[in-house]
Amino acid sequence: MSESHPKKWDFFIGTQKMKNILVIASHPNIEHSYANKIILSNLELSSLNVEICHIDKLYPTYDINIEAEQSKLIKADVVVLQFPFYWYSVPAALKSWIDKVLSYGFAYGSAGDKLKGKHIIPSITVGGPEESYSATGYNHFSIKELLRPLEQTAYLTQMIWNEPVYTHGCIYIPNVYNTQEEVESRAKNHANRLIEKLESLS
Amino acid sequence: MSESHPKKWDFFIGTQKMKNILVIASHPNIEHSYANKIILSNLELSSLNVEICHIDKLYPTYDINIEAEQSKLIKADVVVLQFPFYWYSVPAALKSWIDKVLSYGFAYGSAGDKLKGKHIIPSITVGGPEESYSATGYNHFSIKELLRPLEQTAYLTQMIWNEPVYTHGCIYIPNVYNTQEEVESRAKNHANRLIEKLESLS
Repeated sequence: MSESHPKKWDFFIGTQKMKNILVIASHPNIEHSYANKIILSNLELSSLNVEICHIDKLYPTYDINIEAEQSKLIKADVVVLQFPFYWYSVPAALKSWIDKVLSYGFAYGSAGDKLKGKHIIPSITVGGPEESYSATGYNHFSIKELLRPLEQTAYLTQMIWNEPVYTHGCIYIPNVYNTQEEVESRAKNHANRLIEKLESLS
Repeated sequence: MSESHPKKWDFFIGTQKMKNILVIASHPNIEHSYANKIILSNLELSSLNVEICHIDKLYPTYDINIEAEQSKLIKADVVVLQFPFYWYSVPAALKSWIDKVLSYGFAYGSAGDKLKGKHIIPSITVGGPEESYSATGYNHFSIKELLRPLEQTAYLTQMIWNEPVYTHGCIYIPNVYNTQEEVESRAKNHANRLIEKLESLS
């Protein structure tokens, strides 16, 4: 059939083909996380074409296989960075991945255009409440302001920057801060928003 | 003598005592650096009371001795973070140090006030030129804007934030970008500015 209608078949493939979504997940202890684990399992159960890489599990001593990671990136149309906000930034393992994988000649520089045109979406669980991330709050700056280094990383690598999907109040400290049910419910809501956003790109 | 004039002696010690300066240096390959090596050796040769810790050398697999690092911090009056700007932020090893050492109950939280009142100064070598770090430049944001995560880390830990000492054009790529002499001269100038700043605190 594809031989008799090659163009129609190609066209059908072209319009129906789902985007390849690569999720780079970073959490020092994902098994004991309340929010990130739920977001990732919801992504996995979705109808999206998703590959999830737990970089802390893959590289516990940060000995990142640069070539393997770059191959995954080349195949991807959309890159999701899934992480808890650690000191207003990505966790160290994800920073290690960024420092090593987005190398000169691959991600930037005169011949470094391998990420050009791919979407990037940060998906972030934030411990503190929304009101703290404002000029008069104890975190002083907005999430948008604190993400400038990541946003500019996207620009230099010619990726398409998408505003982050993020959720406040994602820390559960028994008898102190939030209930487990509250955090889990926020994580499910976060997953739905992220999936909706990804479907809009697919 | 100290027994007959205890108060005077204490007063003398109090005014003359030099501040303890702890330098947390992060560079994946310090021996082959052009700028960071020079800045650190100039600090070492100064008359300041400086302890320099190369965290990439101390912890090549990021297996940071949290207790040892916290002890160093407790003794310090001033903390210098010395690093090359990697993707608009600290290198991964320094992020690992921050994530692990600035722990709940030590650096923040209701009983976490061990860093309160200590000075923090980022000392940064930047590859790109000054004009690129502006709204119309290819790096879009100022160094100040890109450092918000580190600035807010200082605020949450009750440290005294000092504007960074930084120098542009600190990358040397033979026959492509800068000369070795240019980079070394900038590094010496940087060291002088940093030492001057530290002397003003001592």
